[in-house]
Amino acid sequence: MVKWLTGPALNDDVTISTRIRVARNLSKYKFPSHMTIEEADMLTNDILNTMMDGMDNNYRFYRMRDLTTREQLIYVEEHLISPNMIQHKDKSSFLIRDDEKATVMINEEDHLRIQTLWPGLNLKEGWDLCSLIDDRLEANLDYAYDENWGYLTTCPTNVGTGLRASVMLHLPSVSMTGEIKTIIEGLRKIGLTARGLYGEGSEALGYLYQISNQTTLGEAEDEIIDKLNRVILQIITQERSTRERLREKRKLELEDRIYRSYGILSHSRILSSKEAMEHLSNVRLGWVMGLIENNKLKDMLRLMIERQPAKIQVRFNKDMDERERDIARAKIIRECILGLEG
Amino acid sequence: MVKWLTGPALNDDVTISTRIRVARNLSKYKFPSHMTIEEADMLTNDILNTMMDGMDNNYRFYRMRDLTTREQLIYVEEHLISPNMIQHKDKSSFLIRDDEKATVMINEEDHLRIQTLWPGLNLKEGWDLCSLIDDRLEANLDYAYDENWGYLTTCPTNVGTGLRASVMLHLPSVSMTGEIKTIIEGLRKIGLTARGLYGEGSEALGYLYQISNQTTLGEAEDEIIDKLNRVILQIITQERSTRERLREKRKLELEDRIYRSYGILSHSRILSSKEAMEHLSNVRLGWVMGLIENNKLKDMLRLMIERQPAKIQVRFNKDMDERERDIARAKIIRECILGLEG
Repeated sequence: MVKWLTGPALNDDVTISTRIRVARNLSKYKFPSHMTIEEADMLTNDILNTMMDGMDNNYRFYRMRDLTTREQLIYVEEHLISPNMIQHKDKSSFLIRDDEKATVMINEEDHLRIQTLWPGLNLKEGWDLCSLIDDRLEANLDYAYDENWGYLTTCPTNVGTGLRASVMLHLPSVSMTGEIKTIIEGLRKIGLTARGLYGEGSEALGYLYQISNQTTLGEAEDEIIDKLNRVILQIITQERSTRERLREKRKLELEDRIYRSYGILSHSRILSSKEAMEHLSNVRLGWVMGLIENNKLKDMLRLMIERQPAKIQVRFNKDMDERERDIARAKIIRECILGLEG
Repeated sequence: MVKWLTGPALNDDVTISTRIRVARNLSKYKFPSHMTIEEADMLTNDILNTMMDGMDNNYRFYRMRDLTTREQLIYVEEHLISPNMIQHKDKSSFLIRDDEKATVMINEEDHLRIQTLWPGLNLKEGWDLCSLIDDRLEANLDYAYDENWGYLTTCPTNVGTGLRASVMLHLPSVSMTGEIKTIIEGLRKIGLTARGLYGEGSEALGYLYQISNQTTLGEAEDEIIDKLNRVILQIITQERSTRERLREKRKLELEDRIYRSYGILSHSRILSSKEAMEHLSNVRLGWVMGLIENNKLKDMLRLMIERQPAKIQVRFNKDMDERERDIARAKIIRECILGLEG
């Protein structure tokens, strides 16, 4: 199981996870893309020294260049680090807190990306932890900061607070009814953005949408977090009431969709990552709504992550081509659902 | 269970059923479409008297006008009578032998349609029985017969022998590989025809094809039967070897298709007749090839027939709209497969 996803989660009938990150840079170093490897290592040491000194929690430290490709991909698939980390892996490294709820990425796009991850909806706790780590680092390091502009970042879209707060929502009902379009338009108007997993707009894979703040300039951190939280709670309410409306008016159609997905997941022999995601999403909805009963189904969330390529290869401890992975994925999911696993 | 489908069947890994019919008319009556109801009743009595007198088996007699619409449809769905019988139901009637392997239709398109039905491939036995009934009737009735043309029929395509012999084949493998196209072309060249269930050519529902003689003129009955039998045996051989080739080279893809169908049949809540047929066809293939094990699956053939609208309504003993039938169909099939039925 992905560690940071364990434990109680608020509003997890609709919310999958909360992610907060801030982008920071140190004034005495060039931006990562312009650094030499030696400079990157010096910067890494500066940050390491600060982090290791007096933090409450234990952190593990990894240099990207010391990890195998498969290991790198696992951290990406678990959302512990961003895919950007692989692009300049000679210079990149990261620290992960024991409970995996916090990661400090060094030389991603910026010198520092402080990230916290939570199951369910947890913006305030996420921001508090992010802030705590940020304050600790800022007390000892010389951040690139401008009186007028705020924190300076490699990409102009992050200048200001450097903050990106995002919540992953599971929105099958409002997707089925088409309400999602109005929701997405509404979000744009108030400076928030909704991205479907692996795609823009309403074609979200598995009805998963990541909703986050678009602007980092002109708003205080607390305001950003508060506004996002309020809006997310509204969307949760709408998704819930649409679910109940579907249950009332279209129960059989809903059950048909959910059970067909269950039938395919528990019987298919070859299953692509995309198709697995779609069916897992349907089954998760069925389980959350109490329309389908199987204790194994609470693991749907885990499977939604473990269906991914690198996770599967780690599980079987070998490199696999796409077809082999599709076969292995079908087997893992089938056995999990049918409870045949040892 | 459909009665005539019970009992041992030859080559039933590929063959579903064999049907033989001859078209006959009595010289002293007008063709059915030109008769009054009174004339039709007189003709019916003539035939009844002959049939009831000295036949070995017992026959049940039904006038179409005395049956409910649902009952009429059931006989059609079980292939015991043809859909044409419903069109002039004021004049039509039929006799069914106790084992339902033989039907004598009165005032279908012709005055007489003698039909025999068998599970699996059984052209010779089918023809023998058809011939026996035909001889008995001919000995007592004055058939419309011309020295040069043979038996006279309403439709010119039946003039001559009046014989149509057809075999229903389950050809999933040669359909999947595309070989079916060459087979169908080859059949045309030798005066045979292949019709997909509910469609022409290669778009057959459930991979079911009815192969029959096209010509009734210029060939003796025995030649027609012999030729059809030889050709069917060739097609059976080809389907079998293609199945083995698929098992060898594409086993997992085959299993994936079969098990997905199994998963959908055993879990869906709303199932159209067409979709049911497709999945039942896949599961039947899996069962015949030993790729899927479930004792209930030998009933797939029964379900391929019982999925039909009128059968479902009889089962539930009420009129149903399409949606209600789709729901009932899903339930019947699901319970049968999962063995939950009482």
